[in-house]
Amino acid sequence: MDISKRIEALRVCMRKKNIDMYYIPSNDFHSSEYVGDFFKCREFISGFDGSAGTVIVTLGGAGLWTDGRYFLQAEEQLKGSGITLYKSGMEGVPKIKDYIEDNIPESGVLGCDGRVVPASWAEDMEECLAAKGAELDSSLDLVGNIWQDRPVIASKPAWLLDVCYAGKTREEKIARLREYMDEYQADYHIITSLDDIAWLLNIRGNDIHCSPVVLSYLIAGKDSIILFADRKSFGSKEEKALAAAGVLFMDYGDIYGYVKGFAKGSKVMLDKNIVNYAIIKNIPSDVKIVNLVNPSVLWKAAKNSIEVNNIKKAHIKDGVAVTKFIYWFKKNMGKIPMTELSVTAKLESIRSKGEHYIGPSFDTIAGFGAHGAIVHYLAVPETDISIEPDNLLLIDTGGHYMEGTTDITRTLFTGGKATREQKKYYTSVLRGNLDLCDVHFLYGCSGASLDYIARKPLWDMGCDYNHGTGHGTGYLLNVHEPPNSFGGTTVFEEGMVTSDEPGIYLEGKFGIRLENLILCVKREKTGYGQFMGFEPLTFVPFDKDLIELGLLDNKERELLNNYHKKVYENISPYLDKDEKEWLENACSEI
Amino acid sequence: MDISKRIEALRVCMRKKNIDMYYIPSNDFHSSEYVGDFFKCREFISGFDGSAGTVIVTLGGAGLWTDGRYFLQAEEQLKGSGITLYKSGMEGVPKIKDYIEDNIPESGVLGCDGRVVPASWAEDMEECLAAKGAELDSSLDLVGNIWQDRPVIASKPAWLLDVCYAGKTREEKIARLREYMDEYQADYHIITSLDDIAWLLNIRGNDIHCSPVVLSYLIAGKDSIILFADRKSFGSKEEKALAAAGVLFMDYGDIYGYVKGFAKGSKVMLDKNIVNYAIIKNIPSDVKIVNLVNPSVLWKAAKNSIEVNNIKKAHIKDGVAVTKFIYWFKKNMGKIPMTELSVTAKLESIRSKGEHYIGPSFDTIAGFGAHGAIVHYLAVPETDISIEPDNLLLIDTGGHYMEGTTDITRTLFTGGKATREQKKYYTSVLRGNLDLCDVHFLYGCSGASLDYIARKPLWDMGCDYNHGTGHGTGYLLNVHEPPNSFGGTTVFEEGMVTSDEPGIYLEGKFGIRLENLILCVKREKTGYGQFMGFEPLTFVPFDKDLIELGLLDNKERELLNNYHKKVYENISPYLDKDEKEWLENACSEI
Repeated sequence: MDISKRIEALRVCMRKKNIDMYYIPSNDFHSSEYVGDFFKCREFISGFDGSAGTVIVTLGGAGLWTDGRYFLQAEEQLKGSGITLYKSGMEGVPKIKDYIEDNIPESGVLGCDGRVVPASWAEDMEECLAAKGAELDSSLDLVGNIWQDRPVIASKPAWLLDVCYAGKTREEKIARLREYMDEYQADYHIITSLDDIAWLLNIRGNDIHCSPVVLSYLIAGKDSIILFADRKSFGSKEEKALAAAGVLFMDYGDIYGYVKGFAKGSKVMLDKNIVNYAIIKNIPSDVKIVNLVNPSVLWKAAKNSIEVNNIKKAHIKDGVAVTKFIYWFKKNMGKIPMTELSVTAKLESIRSKGEHYIGPSFDTIAGFGAHGAIVHYLAVPETDISIEPDNLLLIDTGGHYMEGTTDITRTLFTGGKATREQKKYYTSVLRGNLDLCDVHFLYGCSGASLDYIARKPLWDMGCDYNHGTGHGTGYLLNVHEPPNSFGGTTVFEEGMVTSDEPGIYLEGKFGIRLENLILCVKREKTGYGQFMGFEPLTFVPFDKDLIELGLLDNKERELLNNYHKKVYENISPYLDKDEKEWLENACSEI
Repeated sequence: MDISKRIEALRVCMRKKNIDMYYIPSNDFHSSEYVGDFFKCREFISGFDGSAGTVIVTLGGAGLWTDGRYFLQAEEQLKGSGITLYKSGMEGVPKIKDYIEDNIPESGVLGCDGRVVPASWAEDMEECLAAKGAELDSSLDLVGNIWQDRPVIASKPAWLLDVCYAGKTREEKIARLREYMDEYQADYHIITSLDDIAWLLNIRGNDIHCSPVVLSYLIAGKDSIILFADRKSFGSKEEKALAAAGVLFMDYGDIYGYVKGFAKGSKVMLDKNIVNYAIIKNIPSDVKIVNLVNPSVLWKAAKNSIEVNNIKKAHIKDGVAVTKFIYWFKKNMGKIPMTELSVTAKLESIRSKGEHYIGPSFDTIAGFGAHGAIVHYLAVPETDISIEPDNLLLIDTGGHYMEGTTDITRTLFTGGKATREQKKYYTSVLRGNLDLCDVHFLYGCSGASLDYIARKPLWDMGCDYNHGTGHGTGYLLNVHEPPNSFGGTTVFEEGMVTSDEPGIYLEGKFGIRLENLILCVKREKTGYGQFMGFEPLTFVPFDKDLIELGLLDNKERELLNNYHKKVYENISPYLDKDEKEWLENACSEI
């Protein structure tokens, strides 16, 4: 069935249900960043397989909204589908909400699957629609109706994360949650974000590509914890351990019926920006909803001391792997053929030898030359190119270990003699990276206040990068983990792990990004308050072939030398003689 | 009548009206930062005359909430009043809202004058109270009932600001507002903030101390503008000019009746955080309220090119006055007796000779030694102290001119030899001031993102200052003018005027603050976007007696030398020979 036929089939369903407009986002039932195959309705209906996009189908037309990363790909993939491409963020392109408002007929009906939209979105939309006497019907999975060979919902084996990795037992975490619920006099807390559930119960799984979570919902009551998940994913050991912590099992889909039984007058805590609308709609109207960010969001972001110790170990293992890879790359570049995909495979083969390695934390981005300037480039056989001298290779990569999750970007010179331009940009990005990690700040400061530091060297040149400076990272969980970042207003707490990743992208030429994960630590306490700082977790050398010494001030030279000294100390014990020799030189003082 | 008798009299009124708790904030009817004498109900009922405070009276008790600036003063002034002092912000002290929630009886009534509370506050409070079956009665001015010698509402002469100062005619401004209203399909726009009204109509007055505004409300309709004000404040020239722009007069208090007549189904734009609740309550419930920040807030903040040219002139006049004052101070210090009040008077006498000088833009803060460490210190005869050598004098002062409003802080060495400590702190504050003004940033950046720059030198030493780094300043309007600041999220626009004023305060020793007003300007536009920067508007030398050269890096030396060069160029033409010679030395290169 080609795309236009799928859309026609959808319209038949829409007419049957009196739907004027049907809304298909990229979400799963949990507001996950990445979703399993079962949830890829937008891809099914449009043929567009980028990670972000929304389709709206009307009885006479259809549109796909996606962002700048995917304009070219979407144009290509939408050819012949009859779907109009709306380039989000471009001047004159209507926002999705405005489009719906303007195009829904008076007294019309917008349809969607209430399980794939957050409650806050749906409530906002209902208010919008009301102004035209229109309404939202969120009871329909119309794409599901026509998707005949739809993949099944993933249900890979779940497993327990030992307290020697998690630092706190599930019982301790649950007790903390109950205390929090008591403060709000809440009878229930509904958690649907998969990483929060995995964190709370110290469980891990493999239901989403690169994200070791278990597809599930959770309701914490005053005495019980109900986990809505496929029981078959859990072995008897896992069941027993969870039962010991008071966890009861119900089927994945049972949550929708379960919430209908909430007692009259009871109070439920949940986050309407995450919890899907179908759940909210099933909660009786005489139950009071306390809308808040799950407390576990902050708890899991501020890693405990055992997690921190583990994370340091994970980063040394990962640093050894990436350093070995760079050694191999520098030694063999120009001697053996290399492509973006082949170096990716080489890196993975080295990393996979690491103790307690579980798998990649995201698909490695390896972009050579002009490909490096495409921020979310992902090499596939059709785009893969050979790596040649005199240019740059950008590699953004990470792994999951029992001891934590890593995320690193290095940009490597591919041999020859670097140009002044290459060095100027590389050194400016490096300065931003070093200066940000070195910041000394008063407790209470958020990422938005520190972002400037990483951008300053580029802004001073009239340049910028069009992405965040850094994101939080989970512990053997999602590589992108809110709430900390170098953009938002979350206050940095001791133990938070954040990426420090300025970059620069010269279209058609090359891209540079330098990323370390950094740990928020306490510094001195004075009469003015508690001061804070960062320590690098990532230990892999920067490429001295690309550094223009004259552009670093004394302080920055010192920062670079100190960093390289630590790289050598941490990584060299795990290298062979040749590698060690190479690293000694790579880390020598400038 | 002493304070406890006033409170008893208030309770008699409360009982008569069945009020359990009565709320008395510091506000006037317009959410002004400073208020006229008529509005000082909180001061009348409590005897506490600080600028910020809220009183709550119950049938059995009374409390005053104020912030750290006023703890000592409030303790003193509340003695014997029977009013409990609640130190806002201190650990364990309940917030006002929590206090009300906890102490209002079930089904009780909280009373207030709806004209002195913003609508958003009242609506929020009503929701709070509802949880206890309690309610808000906002129809009562009970303090007014018992305040027998209450001052009359100010009604000083209003006058027109010529377009040669304002840059845009009132007709142009009104037309722009009407376009904006059309976008929202608004039939009315209610403005109650006095500076917005003065800006829109190019009128000025003198109804609030140091704030050249006219007590008034304004309703812009589709064809008419109604100004609710005391017509007697306006001469026939003023009336004629306003009439020519379509402005009709009604009495100050008539707005409450007028809004009752809004047509059914019409739409009114207003800011619920500013417009008082009594106005909102009088608007028929079938009128749609669009709650938004007045568009004039942004328009008046981004000064037009004529205003900018004028502001530069005002700052040169003010710079000449302050420079002459510093010359006089440095020459006479140790030779003639000086006190905080006497130097304040001297400065005012010099400033008042300036062309088109209208008056101070706020009460000058002159704090010697330990007084300088009290951030909002205001010398009065009871606190005035003699200025002695070997210490610092902090002067924060500003003026209104036809060409704009100034605000400057300098910290002066009072003679002898400065200590290492004095120099270390002074130089660190100076570095923050210079570095912030020098920032080069991409358009889209807000103050919160740049605040770090001014604090960095202090944070690096484990120090901080407990106030904002800078605020917007009006054009011959309020010296503190939102929305731009170095704390908030307002994006900096070309033409915005903001203060750059880091400081450090050593209790019992001295305070240092260095404040320039700086102008936001466009820099180069590149492929990455429009870059922006700041230019200093204030031209008065920093005190080289307090600068530790070794603490400035090369860039900062260059910034200081460049600034001093501009000070000399701009100011020296207006000085006599001795003053000029002194300035040449004060501005010489380091």
